[in-house]
Amino acid sequence: MKILAIGAHPDDIEVGCSGTLAKYAQEGHDICLLVMTEGQMGGKGVTRKKEQIQSSRLLKPREVIWGGYHDTLLTPHMNQMVSDIEAVIHKISPDFIFVHHEDDTHQDHRALAKATVSATRYIRNVLFYEGPTTRNFSPTVFVDIQQTMETKIKMLLAHRSQVQKTNIEGLAITDVVRSTAVFRGIQGRVPLAEAFAPLRLFINILPTGREGL
Amino acid sequence: MKILAIGAHPDDIEVGCSGTLAKYAQEGHDICLLVMTEGQMGGKGVTRKKEQIQSSRLLKPREVIWGGYHDTLLTPHMNQMVSDIEAVIHKISPDFIFVHHEDDTHQDHRALAKATVSATRYIRNVLFYEGPTTRNFSPTVFVDIQQTMETKIKMLLAHRSQVQKTNIEGLAITDVVRSTAVFRGIQGRVPLAEAFAPLRLFINILPTGREGL
Amino acid sequence: MKILAIGAHPDDIEVGCSGTLAKYAQEGHDICLLVMTEGQMGGKGVTRKKEQIQSSRLLKPREVIWGGYHDTLLTPHMNQMVSDIEAVIHKISPDFIFVHHEDDTHQDHRALAKATVSATRYIRNVLFYEGPTTRNFSPTVFVDIQQTMETKIKMLLAHRSQVQKTNIEGLAITDVVRSTAVFRGIQGRVPLAEAFAPLRLFINILPTGREGL
Amino acid sequence: MKILAIGAHPDDIEVGCSGTLAKYAQEGHDICLLVMTEGQMGGKGVTRKKEQIQSSRLLKPREVIWGGYHDTLLTPHMNQMVSDIEAVIHKISPDFIFVHHEDDTHQDHRALAKATVSATRYIRNVLFYEGPTTRNFSPTVFVDIQQTMETKIKMLLAHRSQVQKTNIEGLAITDVVRSTAVFRGIQGRVPLAEAFAPLRLFINILPTGREGL
Amino acid sequence: MKILAIGAHPDDIEVGCSGTLAKYAQEGHDICLLVMTEGQMGGKGVTRKKEQIQSSRLLKPREVIWGGYHDTLLTPHMNQMVSDIEAVIHKISPDFIFVHHEDDTHQDHRALAKATVSATRYIRNVLFYEGPTTRNFSPTVFVDIQQTMETKIKMLLAHRSQVQKTNIEGLAITDVVRSTAVFRGIQGRVPLAEAFAPLRLFINILPTGREGL
Amino acid sequence: MKILAIGAHPDDIEVGCSGTLAKYAQEGHDICLLVMTEGQMGGKGVTRKKEQIQSSRLLKPREVIWGGYHDTLLTPHMNQMVSDIEAVIHKISPDFIFVHHEDDTHQDHRALAKATVSATRYIRNVLFYEGPTTRNFSPTVFVDIQQTMETKIKMLLAHRSQVQKTNIEGLAITDVVRSTAVFRGIQGRVPLAEAFAPLRLFINILPTGREGL
Repeated sequence: MKILAIGAHPDDIEVGCSGTLAKYAQEGHDICLLVMTEGQMGGKGVTRKKEQIQSSRLLKPREVIWGGYHDTLLTPHMNQMVSDIEAVIHKISPDFIFVHHEDDTHQDHRALAKATVSATRYIRNVLFYEGPTTRNFSPTVFVDIQQTMETKIKMLLAHRSQVQKTNIEGLAITDVVRSTAVFRGIQGRVPLAEAFAPLRLFINILPTGREGL
Repeated sequence: MKILAIGAHPDDIEVGCSGTLAKYAQEGHDICLLVMTEGQMGGKGVTRKKEQIQSSRLLKPREVIWGGYHDTLLTPHMNQMVSDIEAVIHKISPDFIFVHHEDDTHQDHRALAKATVSATRYIRNVLFYEGPTTRNFSPTVFVDIQQTMETKIKMLLAHRSQVQKTNIEGLAITDVVRSTAVFRGIQGRVPLAEAFAPLRLFINILPTGREGL
Repeated sequence: MKILAIGAHPDDIEVGCSGTLAKYAQEGHDICLLVMTEGQMGGKGVTRKKEQIQSSRLLKPREVIWGGYHDTLLTPHMNQMVSDIEAVIHKISPDFIFVHHEDDTHQDHRALAKATVSATRYIRNVLFYEGPTTRNFSPTVFVDIQQTMETKIKMLLAHRSQVQKTNIEGLAITDVVRSTAVFRGIQGRVPLAEAFAPLRLFINILPTGREGL
Repeated sequence: MKILAIGAHPDDIEVGCSGTLAKYAQEGHDICLLVMTEGQMGGKGVTRKKEQIQSSRLLKPREVIWGGYHDTLLTPHMNQMVSDIEAVIHKISPDFIFVHHEDDTHQDHRALAKATVSATRYIRNVLFYEGPTTRNFSPTVFVDIQQTMETKIKMLLAHRSQVQKTNIEGLAITDVVRSTAVFRGIQGRVPLAEAFAPLRLFINILPTGREGL
Repeated sequence: MKILAIGAHPDDIEVGCSGTLAKYAQEGHDICLLVMTEGQMGGKGVTRKKEQIQSSRLLKPREVIWGGYHDTLLTPHMNQMVSDIEAVIHKISPDFIFVHHEDDTHQDHRALAKATVSATRYIRNVLFYEGPTTRNFSPTVFVDIQQTMETKIKMLLAHRSQVQKTNIEGLAITDVVRSTAVFRGIQGRVPLAEAFAPLRLFINILPTGREGL
Repeated sequence: MKILAIGAHPDDIEVGCSGTLAKYAQEGHDICLLVMTEGQMGGKGVTRKKEQIQSSRLLKPREVIWGGYHDTLLTPHMNQMVSDIEAVIHKISPDFIFVHHEDDTHQDHRALAKATVSATRYIRNVLFYEGPTTRNFSPTVFVDIQQTMETKIKMLLAHRSQVQKTNIEGLAITDVVRSTAVFRGIQGRVPLAEAFAPLRLFINILPTGREGL
């Protein structure tokens, strides 16, 4: 299957769903990333872009696509973003799309989520992921990431300029992410999980004899 | 996989999720039904029980279990229902459970949903289905039932004493169910669908080469 | 009474509330339509405009007003839309206003709903209608459209270029609309209904001896 | 039309919807009250019953029906209440039903609202009213009670043993009710209003020439 | 402590939280106001500015800051507003921030609330206040304003050009505000209160021996 | 101040709010615990009671009160629980009350939360806490528990028979609690926090010169 993950800034996708992406990459699915900005407000754009590419290598994605927008300035470009995301969808025909949750204290995350809701209106599987700025998130869909938790951590560490930038003293993004995985794991009844709120999701019950997959 | 569908009265499961059950039954999964009452307030218990058994045959279920409760009287038996459902779960170890949505104008549906939420607290996949009395239902999970719509209709027709009992003149339960399947299909972007709200669901992305399943 | 229906594109009003409009038009109320764009992204503007006018004739509206905006580009014009809708309200003094629901996967529908919420802040009766892209819609207000269902269908057929454009193979917009009317009818306890979520609504209990109206 | 108002204790209906009842009583509609308990926990049952009857006279109701339950003890009688309310509905065939909102800090109000939701499952117009213990109430339906505000106050004063029992020093129930009417009036854009959340409501747009009614 | 109150137009802060501000001003806390526009659509900018300054004197604020935006035109300036509010926060380091609720029929209030949610993402105490155009507001946090109700009224009267502009005949803004204070007082179990919905709030239980403060 | 924490089973209060209790106990506030059952379904009642008492010693509470109910059987005793909690409130006059969140997969937690909502209807500060079975919890109120996290852990370890009973292999309750504290800390912008949803809360802004408390 083809999976498209969309994030506003470098490392957003990693925080939200890289355990899931790594899991399905390992099973042979096609991963594609769309990063809308270089995250210029949180560091040098050129550095952050490099970090994103380095991190992404662990997923062996088919492609990392850059949206070319400017950090913090997504809101005024709602219509353009809808078109751009539609163009990416047209090009790669994803079966699954992951994006920021609609309610978030970061204006870029909100705007990108809204644009994606519009651009994906005829896509069958679209899921919202979470991050430290997400609000009012009551996830109902879970992915067990026990096997890929360490890959997720490695990906986050590749964003070297960001690891300590959590705005909470003494707390690295890797601490945030580990605690979140345990917290969501509890809700999903597994040790470590990523959690999602579906915009729209089709159940796929595995055929008999394939449950182990 | 093992699938357990739970309903308060004969034909509730058919209305809510029989297209999905038929689909997975055809693929070789194990289906089990738990019907809490004989629906004595909507007809003769003995008749309705017979109809339920006849309808169920189309699913070739492993078992149809009767809860033994009395129609309209589930509310005062919350604790007993939790125990009874836990016992069924213990016996058949279901991977997926389907039950009424929590908000409903029928007191039995509400009580059974609540009891199931408690009894399934350590089950990984639990989904709420809808019916004509469901309230405030914003489903996010869909199953394409194009292939099994006619089986669903046949199952409903097997409940001969109930087909015309919709409380809306001139409208048979089969009309209700067809319209609902189209309505939910639109939301899921397929011609006919059953729709669910997850209490908790694990994504299963099919392994490469098996997408067609 | 004066009724104003507002839609983003040609045929949106028909999908959402034309059964209701036709019903009240037949009883002698004044109907006015405000269509914000010509729907240029879904066909030729000139064609769609013509279709809208042809469809509207069945309502014998006092007026069809065109907003003059461009399809898919409503979002950046929130303030202008508020002013424009206020101007229309000032001109026709509507007693009832119908508009898209606020949550929708189409960005134009969302933006127009928000603009209308602002522009109608001192109007007593404002109701949100639904369409195939509406999200999280839990309607509580219903209109029985048994007598005008066929008019609604005829109006939709007047939008000839759009009838098959549902993005679901084999499903015409008339199928969507019929199923929705049955689905909402069930919730309202009548055979066919249109359903609304009120922003604000005043009850009008008919005086004794006029119940049949 | 026939209007049935349901309350858990004497004076609950007055607080919630007596302005509306008085308005429609004046227009010649039939009013019926169903009071589930005598309010024995807030005073002597015999006194409170007398007060309720005295207050009700101002509505000239067709009937005041007593549920016969004990104050604070409605919760365990969900099923019996559903049957009892169904019996009342069967007897008087109401067109409109008013009852407590579902979310409330008082256990009797919650239980009665739930029982009414079940018992009214095939009634076309059911509305939830509010009181000082209501929670999470976002009303969308309003009734202008300018003409009957003073009747509402008089009815509340008839509950002499309760007027000062607001649990807030120096605040009479009439103060509570006046402030609420202004507060909801603002939301409905009229000087004084009662506000409701619909479970289910049919719009009745008055026929031309009758708007003044 | 330092308290920052943010409003879109002159008198918005007064309506929403001036009782609270006056209370804490009296206890010696630092108050700062940020008013985004001069309210040019509701009167002459120069007049309204003067009124705001006169009203504010009753709080003896450290500063009244003007945002310099134009009335009704906040929506298109989301990003600029986020930056501007961040700059104010950087300058005055507030411990508490008060702002409009996110859901409101006025487009400026919505936009300003959203911008503030973004700008305050690392502030510990942020609360949403209400006004006559607020929607879907279920406050859970209360401040007893018995001691400062009259100051609140005086502040509102200082906005002389606005007192009668409530869009409801015969109702002054002071009537609106008094009724709201009683209505919210009831919910908080005190005679007069202002009510808030927290975005984020830290409990401060007063140390023993200081409860009377 | 007097703080009452209410839990259905031994260790529920510890999971939900013991960091907060320990913090305020250290500052000299009075703590009182009300534990409704001995948790007989999760171990021997006599053992669990002993563990609860041992754990509680770390808070030096004024009193640990036992409700005397049977584990899993709270639902049918709604009315009795309301009376019992009211009696406790009458006896100790708490300023703050903490209890389970209303939405939870455990039937006892739901029932106890509902009973507490009723029993505390005239208490000014009531907050819902969370645990591993809580659902749909979007907390807005936080307490920084950096100083008391280790006390919280010690208290949980005192419930020796329960530490490994999380239903998730390899995960101790202390892991759950630590991850939750980090997860909620992120949302509150501190390293470790307990999070609450207020039923009703009064802000207490500390007087100038006491901010450090």
